[in-house]
Amino acid sequence: MTITRNWLAHAEGSVLVEFGGTKVLCAASVQDSVPRWRKGSGLGWITAEYSMLPRSTNTRSDRESIKGKIGGRTHEISRLIGRSLRACVNYKAMGENSIILDCDVLQADGGTRTASITGAYVALADAIAWMRKRRMCPGDPLVGSVAAVSVGVVGTTPMLDLCYTEDVAAETDMNVVMTGGGEFVEVQGTAEGAPFDRELLGRLLDLATEGCAQLTELQRKALA
Amino acid sequence: MTITRNWLAHAEGSVLVEFGGTKVLCAASVQDSVPRWRKGSGLGWITAEYSMLPRSTNTRSDRESIKGKIGGRTHEISRLIGRSLRACVNYKAMGENSIILDCDVLQADGGTRTASITGAYVALADAIAWMRKRRMCPGDPLVGSVAAVSVGVVGTTPMLDLCYTEDVAAETDMNVVMTGGGEFVEVQGTAEGAPFDRELLGRLLDLATEGCAQLTELQRKALA
Amino acid sequence: MTITRNWLAHAEGSVLVEFGGTKVLCAASVQDSVPRWRKGSGLGWITAEYSMLPRSTNTRSDRESIKGKIGGRTHEISRLIGRSLRACVNYKAMGENSIILDCDVLQADGGTRTASITGAYVALADAIAWMRKRRMCPGDPLVGSVAAVSVGVVGTTPMLDLCYTEDVAAETDMNVVMTGGGEFVEVQGTAEGAPFDRELLGRLLDLATEGCAQLTELQRKALA
Amino acid sequence: MTITRNWLAHAEGSVLVEFGGTKVLCAASVQDSVPRWRKGSGLGWITAEYSMLPRSTNTRSDRESIKGKIGGRTHEISRLIGRSLRACVNYKAMGENSIILDCDVLQADGGTRTASITGAYVALADAIAWMRKRRMCPGDPLVGSVAAVSVGVVGTTPMLDLCYTEDVAAETDMNVVMTGGGEFVEVQGTAEGAPFDRELLGRLLDLATEGCAQLTELQRKALA
Amino acid sequence: MTITRNWLAHAEGSVLVEFGGTKVLCAASVQDSVPRWRKGSGLGWITAEYSMLPRSTNTRSDRESIKGKIGGRTHEISRLIGRSLRACVNYKAMGENSIILDCDVLQADGGTRTASITGAYVALADAIAWMRKRRMCPGDPLVGSVAAVSVGVVGTTPMLDLCYTEDVAAETDMNVVMTGGGEFVEVQGTAEGAPFDRELLGRLLDLATEGCAQLTELQRKALA
Amino acid sequence: MTITRNWLAHAEGSVLVEFGGTKVLCAASVQDSVPRWRKGSGLGWITAEYSMLPRSTNTRSDRESIKGKIGGRTHEISRLIGRSLRACVNYKAMGENSIILDCDVLQADGGTRTASITGAYVALADAIAWMRKRRMCPGDPLVGSVAAVSVGVVGTTPMLDLCYTEDVAAETDMNVVMTGGGEFVEVQGTAEGAPFDRELLGRLLDLATEGCAQLTELQRKALA
Repeated sequence: MTITRNWLAHAEGSVLVEFGGTKVLCAASVQDSVPRWRKGSGLGWITAEYSMLPRSTNTRSDRESIKGKIGGRTHEISRLIGRSLRACVNYKAMGENSIILDCDVLQADGGTRTASITGAYVALADAIAWMRKRRMCPGDPLVGSVAAVSVGVVGTTPMLDLCYTEDVAAETDMNVVMTGGGEFVEVQGTAEGAPFDRELLGRLLDLATEGCAQLTELQRKALA
Repeated sequence: MTITRNWLAHAEGSVLVEFGGTKVLCAASVQDSVPRWRKGSGLGWITAEYSMLPRSTNTRSDRESIKGKIGGRTHEISRLIGRSLRACVNYKAMGENSIILDCDVLQADGGTRTASITGAYVALADAIAWMRKRRMCPGDPLVGSVAAVSVGVVGTTPMLDLCYTEDVAAETDMNVVMTGGGEFVEVQGTAEGAPFDRELLGRLLDLATEGCAQLTELQRKALA
Repeated sequence: MTITRNWLAHAEGSVLVEFGGTKVLCAASVQDSVPRWRKGSGLGWITAEYSMLPRSTNTRSDRESIKGKIGGRTHEISRLIGRSLRACVNYKAMGENSIILDCDVLQADGGTRTASITGAYVALADAIAWMRKRRMCPGDPLVGSVAAVSVGVVGTTPMLDLCYTEDVAAETDMNVVMTGGGEFVEVQGTAEGAPFDRELLGRLLDLATEGCAQLTELQRKALA
Repeated sequence: MTITRNWLAHAEGSVLVEFGGTKVLCAASVQDSVPRWRKGSGLGWITAEYSMLPRSTNTRSDRESIKGKIGGRTHEISRLIGRSLRACVNYKAMGENSIILDCDVLQADGGTRTASITGAYVALADAIAWMRKRRMCPGDPLVGSVAAVSVGVVGTTPMLDLCYTEDVAAETDMNVVMTGGGEFVEVQGTAEGAPFDRELLGRLLDLATEGCAQLTELQRKALA
Repeated sequence: MTITRNWLAHAEGSVLVEFGGTKVLCAASVQDSVPRWRKGSGLGWITAEYSMLPRSTNTRSDRESIKGKIGGRTHEISRLIGRSLRACVNYKAMGENSIILDCDVLQADGGTRTASITGAYVALADAIAWMRKRRMCPGDPLVGSVAAVSVGVVGTTPMLDLCYTEDVAAETDMNVVMTGGGEFVEVQGTAEGAPFDRELLGRLLDLATEGCAQLTELQRKALA
Repeated sequence: MTITRNWLAHAEGSVLVEFGGTKVLCAASVQDSVPRWRKGSGLGWITAEYSMLPRSTNTRSDRESIKGKIGGRTHEISRLIGRSLRACVNYKAMGENSIILDCDVLQADGGTRTASITGAYVALADAIAWMRKRRMCPGDPLVGSVAAVSVGVVGTTPMLDLCYTEDVAAETDMNVVMTGGGEFVEVQGTAEGAPFDRELLGRLLDLATEGCAQLTELQRKALA
């Protein structure tokens, strides 16, 4: 995985994450306001939107803007990214400001949602640094880091970060989001084929823990 | 939890699940066709749609039909229910038929998604029995059962099946879908507050395993 | 027809109306505000929304939320229910508060719109009682009652409250909404087949008057 | 009321109806097919769409195409026009052809729905004549005529065809659609203010019967 | 081309433009406010909406309101009309008021967009006169006039104002909007078939200049 | 301007165009079918879709997929790109195949529509080469090349390819699409401020001709 910071000129934080054939552009946009339901609370807000370019995939898919509706998968992943990043932020220290994370998949080859989370964290850290330089925040909103991996079982072998071909063949698919401190933020395991038992779950979590630790190190270096 | 079968006259399978203050109406509709992308495959299909009545909650919420778009939460839960029930079905034995599971929340008091899955399984079993009586299927499509619970941590105590007030206060929230044989179909854990460690994850899974076993027994009795 | 009050725990008024195979859940929601165009008028507002669950009918129909648009029939019936209930309310005595009546058809076997009106009136009365207990209204907003029946001609025989099979076979179909005092609020007659003459119209109105009187009595008992 | 036939060059039947300040353009379009659900039945189909130009009214209203949704009133009136015109057509004699009636209100000054029905009938008759000249129909689809008036009570006086100012002040508003033979196709009476009794209903129907007879004569002359 | 002023009773300015078989109804609506993004600027705003009635064309087309989305051609033409008319207005002299120009094509036989611009100018002039009579504007907002023609090449012959049949056969199609003073506001040339060279472009602009001058004269007479 | 070919792995043709601060990703997708209205004609089809990522601009804009509707500007530019590229294609030689050109603006600093056309041509050429290698086309569909520039007047000076700051200040803005042979495909000039005369139009076209010739050379080199 390579992380290129400041790929965009306008965004307060931006990262191009490349990971196998997958390329995701993560942009963090700072806004000096919060959604209506949060006004007057003194608290900030983080939200995320995920989308795939029509030809990011092997076969072109129709644009959701033209279909006029957002698909369920897009919604599900946008929500996952938002929840994951909110786990490393202190809303109070942020003040009544918002950060929107746009994760646009330019090319997809498996693992787009976990690459999005891992990259968006770096863009978020840059955006928060930008805010702090302008003294927009009453404190330091960044209370930790998050990184994400997908793990799966191909045949009977647990594997880290499946590419697209492996992903399709996988029996079980698990997305794990962890803090830099090694704790879990999200665990989403799905049996695509046969259900899995506690022992296999344990081995997948071991793999994920290891993978997230490596990504945390990569994020640390990128931000250094 | 109480499960009332055949609550509706028209549906091939239908169940009213009541669980604390939560009431979900699950209807299974058989169709002798499959979606276009599956035609000619010889395989069946299972899908689900979840929705909440506007006044199922404490404060009335606007209808998604009037807003003209489906919210992310609705999409996410509909997809979870569909994936969960597909885990107990053999598509080949089903033939080119579909079953749609409609889970409509009449009243919400926490745990609506897990109550939906647990109830929808019973409606599905009834719909499959209906199909078999009419000799619509080349084999027996039902290869197991699924049930679901939510577990969470309130303060520092892991708890099974939080009601709405506990749910709001929970630090961690986990939805677990298991087969009747005690294996995992879905594990979805989210740290709403502080991230959780492996040990706590283990305790939550223990609780969930126990809870699902009880629900499996309840389903068995209801179907007897 | 049976009327079960307080079927829902959260709503300020709620009724399950059962009538033949038809089951409609009517919920009245109180809001301490009025639509924008009515602000500052000192007057209240009543509105209604009607919807059918996808499997309330013999064949499953697609959800309007998924289609992204409200059908003409839904719109027409929602407007009819709203107009009917506004006939028994004094807006001035209500103050700048709103009541929304949600009529959700759980199961349909003919007469869903008239069952909705008849049940919604009881839910409305309960919601108004709730408001008055909290001293939200400057006066008593309830100035009468309304009930509704459908009448039709099957073959050449005028009949009250057709079930679905009769409804389909009916030559003429008329929905009549009347006050408890025996006056008309809405008369909607439609010749599905042959047009009808003044004499037949008269006989249908006689039948409707009788039917509404019985329902008014039933509402009175339910609210006693 | 004046009826100008053939106002449009392209449509198979077209009429500009002027009635007080109200101007409605009615176009009948013939299509040599029927909706999917009617294919293979040997029967024809009639449908209608009603719409108001944004500046047909005193204050400009937003276009429904820009709002992205059809309002309830538009739906209700489109359905009323369609039902009314279907009452004078024999589907079997029509063969598997459709006629769509577009009623676009260019200027509104009360009575737009009844003017639409009265004008659309003439456009329909012209379109059917056009079809018969081309031998598209197995028989004569036109089995009668329909005309419509609105009647209301201003103060305590029943009045025919209220203009906009009177309409707003009306206590009761009734739209009546009748055949040329003097029978009822639709009776839609609504108490905007006080409910009405049987005697008043009778007087309104007398007025309507008289008004429709005059319009039928006008239609006959226009088509001569 | 004939221009009939005050075709509508309610609009502040209105024109029926007829041009060959083309009939466009242009209505100018004055509003004493501006869009949100322009509030507090002291400047006015002009915008336009173009639409075709479903049966304005030879074959009926579906309503955009029913499709739920505006097509690209409609958007493109609405924007062109708006830009063109903004060229003859001084926003400062207008004050914080808006004028909306609705151009509804009742019948189409080529040149609907240029007829819309030419007619909308007259409606705009009338609306501005209406405003000035009411002393709504700090100055005279009308700083010039605009008119528009389409020119094209049929075979190898440049021609002014193609009717529909010629339009379809045209190799090149150009819409030109000019001020009364003979300067260009918009030049939109498109090679439908073979691309065109500078010399041909020149000849088309000559034709357009001549055509616009004639229309300017016509507008002047209509407004006299 | 730099043109990077094969920026994407999956698309049949793809180009990243960079031009000042502007970055547009152009992907050409081949489909072995044509839209329904063109079936059986033996002819191919070319279409284009333009879109901006939410944070391509200085201030984040909302996604059109989330708003549920395509804006007018997006529609206008998509149509312009499609028309421009259709000018260099022979539909007959293409056979019944389609190519869709997706132009996604990753970063915007003026001239995104002309950069899209210039880049999309190169992606199109690659996609056609891909088709020819697979013998999908009866002949050579590529009959020429197209390139596009924007020219404008800042103050009184005509300038080529304005960046964003200049664009905003421009009095006149013209987009010119030309073939490699130096002929015009599209000329779209708009007076944002003062209208322009024939002499200025001439000078802008001179500039554009020169600019397009340079881009044609650049395209030739990129494809060499």
